[in-house]
Amino acid sequence: MNVKTVTINGKRLSDSIHELSQFGQNDGGGLDRTTFTDSELKARDWLKEQLSKLNVHVHTDEAANIWGKRVGQKKRSIVCGSHIDTVPNGGKFDGALGVLIGLEILRTLEENEIETEHDVELVSFSAEEPNPFGLSTFGSRAMAGKLTAEQIKGVRNADGMRLIDALERAGGNAAQFDHCVRRENDLLAYLEVHIEQGKRLIDAQVPLGIVTGITGIYREELTIKGVPNHAGTTVMTDRTDALVAAAELILAVKNVCTDFPKAELVGTVGQIHVLPNATNIIPGEVVLAVEIRGEKTEDLQKVQQELQEKKAYVETTYGVQIETKVRLNQAPVAMSENVMTVMERQAEIGGFPTMRLGSMAGHDAAHMASLTSAGMIFVPSIDGKSHCPEEESKMEDIEKAANVCLRTLLEIDREGGSM
Amino acid sequence: MNVKTVTINGKRLSDSIHELSQFGQNDGGGLDRTTFTDSELKARDWLKEQLSKLNVHVHTDEAANIWGKRVGQKKRSIVCGSHIDTVPNGGKFDGALGVLIGLEILRTLEENEIETEHDVELVSFSAEEPNPFGLSTFGSRAMAGKLTAEQIKGVRNADGMRLIDALERAGGNAAQFDHCVRRENDLLAYLEVHIEQGKRLIDAQVPLGIVTGITGIYREELTIKGVPNHAGTTVMTDRTDALVAAAELILAVKNVCTDFPKAELVGTVGQIHVLPNATNIIPGEVVLAVEIRGEKTEDLQKVQQELQEKKAYVETTYGVQIETKVRLNQAPVAMSENVMTVMERQAEIGGFPTMRLGSMAGHDAAHMASLTSAGMIFVPSIDGKSHCPEEESKMEDIEKAANVCLRTLLEIDREGGSM
Repeated sequence: MNVKTVTINGKRLSDSIHELSQFGQNDGGGLDRTTFTDSELKARDWLKEQLSKLNVHVHTDEAANIWGKRVGQKKRSIVCGSHIDTVPNGGKFDGALGVLIGLEILRTLEENEIETEHDVELVSFSAEEPNPFGLSTFGSRAMAGKLTAEQIKGVRNADGMRLIDALERAGGNAAQFDHCVRRENDLLAYLEVHIEQGKRLIDAQVPLGIVTGITGIYREELTIKGVPNHAGTTVMTDRTDALVAAAELILAVKNVCTDFPKAELVGTVGQIHVLPNATNIIPGEVVLAVEIRGEKTEDLQKVQQELQEKKAYVETTYGVQIETKVRLNQAPVAMSENVMTVMERQAEIGGFPTMRLGSMAGHDAAHMASLTSAGMIFVPSIDGKSHCPEEESKMEDIEKAANVCLRTLLEIDREGGSM
Repeated sequence: MNVKTVTINGKRLSDSIHELSQFGQNDGGGLDRTTFTDSELKARDWLKEQLSKLNVHVHTDEAANIWGKRVGQKKRSIVCGSHIDTVPNGGKFDGALGVLIGLEILRTLEENEIETEHDVELVSFSAEEPNPFGLSTFGSRAMAGKLTAEQIKGVRNADGMRLIDALERAGGNAAQFDHCVRRENDLLAYLEVHIEQGKRLIDAQVPLGIVTGITGIYREELTIKGVPNHAGTTVMTDRTDALVAAAELILAVKNVCTDFPKAELVGTVGQIHVLPNATNIIPGEVVLAVEIRGEKTEDLQKVQQELQEKKAYVETTYGVQIETKVRLNQAPVAMSENVMTVMERQAEIGGFPTMRLGSMAGHDAAHMASLTSAGMIFVPSIDGKSHCPEEESKMEDIEKAANVCLRTLLEIDREGGSM
């Protein structure tokens, strides 16, 4: 057979998506498959069972990442994967798609008896989504050596459960945690298919997105201190209302980011806490969570600078004090230009239009990029919806992405040295 | 003796303020004496004990209001009082002052053997402050026949305690609740001394405020519906952010009220709830509590109209939907012109400057005004502070207020027919 046009089985992939979506499904059709919960553990068992039917080595590493390795001629691996945990009431495509396409690639290689030069590995990373232990992209961070045994030791969820106990229940091993770390010379490339979770592809009517990089995320917590007082007896000119000052800052974040000349620069105030939060008391203190995302470090810095000036203005105008605590400062990560080029070539051969775009969400690929040449393919999200039961992508787009991923893997396998 | 210049005992009044402030005092010097709590029940016992030492009839009515009646020649009563419950971490003057001045007046009448034409009654109303049962000015509302047994039947606090059980613990009687209602022809006048809780008197350096009326309070709950979405993958122009729309409304309330040509018109957004309130999700729904207070119904209506226009603008501009639920629409209440005139005359005789001003907080006097001629005297609040441990008034001002209250009561007693 001509390995250049080998094709995955769309029906089988579609069935797998349906089967995996049964684990954690709630009455509203959403998936409650938060990491290390009972339903997520059942989904893990299902995945391991599927892998056990193939001629691959199945292994759960110390961070409870699940691996299926199809051995090739050389030691370096081409890895393909994503994650199977979901946000609460999430959808059946986010994460699952990348893992199931990896599984489908292993099945397709086996049934077509294709021998690869390199090992081909499927990975299902632990705890990619925000989770009750407060550690998202847990598995890929651990594998990239960015999370130590020391850092996870004291971590508990709100119910007091220790992360290390949850981890061991899922097949991990906290005592030998750093054994999960993979080295650069183990790996040749990492490929991940994921839903876009935005509207750019669907609006442009393009079936495949070639991801140029993964957004940087900057989060700060602003504490705005005013003076609490009686909402009846304090005349307007005598007030130092922390919520009024906060409202100015919420609008500032929106205006600075909307006016920024790049569409992929976004800013959000998603969380607010007001003290005392009573109908008849002027708010004395407000805590805001501000998040800025952008593809370039200099863009993020520019926005931070503009917001800094706005904070100074609000302090002067309203008489409040504003404290800033930086909660996250994750730099943008570029995808491999080589991998992008191979993906675009394979898409062109298949006759599928593509569009380059930045990922505005974080992904496991961001951590894999520090170890190896990483690339991502985005599939359009209908109406741009994700992290909800309505999350949906078209099977015809999914098949295109799976075939481009498979053929990219095979081209990289042949041309390995240039990666 | 000349009853026109009879004088209260300032030392004794000061001691009473100190004694009552021991009930519910926390480590920070604030008072935790929320209605129907253990500490408030102990304060009630203390008050009843003080009354039992005088030649008065002590009685707890069905709404658990505490009464001490000094019998005169005629049946109609002149009532003097306020409340002894506090907000959480409140101060020792709000409410307590009016009750303790009423007690001091009874003591002064008794030790000077003054016989009055009318009965003189002290009242300590139940649950004036906002409380866990959600019913402020509970006792005076009940006594004025504005709160029925039916309305209190199902009410519980957040711990699930029934209001009627709490009421009975305090000496009330839910089964015969409407027996607490007093009729107009029972009463000749109601007098209440209270701290101002604002800065107008202290700024003007005037020791006594003659209250012209009690502010109207209009409260509405606004539910702003946007579209929750991923804070990373949704570009700025695709957002329907409920919190950004809410910020516009918070500033609108502040601007409309600040620009209003009357200082006693105030507006506050004191409470906000955001869904889902997560760092990385665009807020999908925000609930705001808006409160407007003013001395004139037409002023309140004018502000509501301006805010209505602003809501329509925000709906159009931001694509959100705004639902308005009116939570309270309490009309302004005028104090009796006759009582004000007597108070001013007695202050002038005593040589104490006065200033007329509206009350921007609600008080039991608002409900008493529907039954009888009501009047209030305000004492300056140092720095305008109230509902906090720092709440404070000068004893020299308090004594002036007590003496004007006593002498007003005696003048009304003599001139009863004209009230």
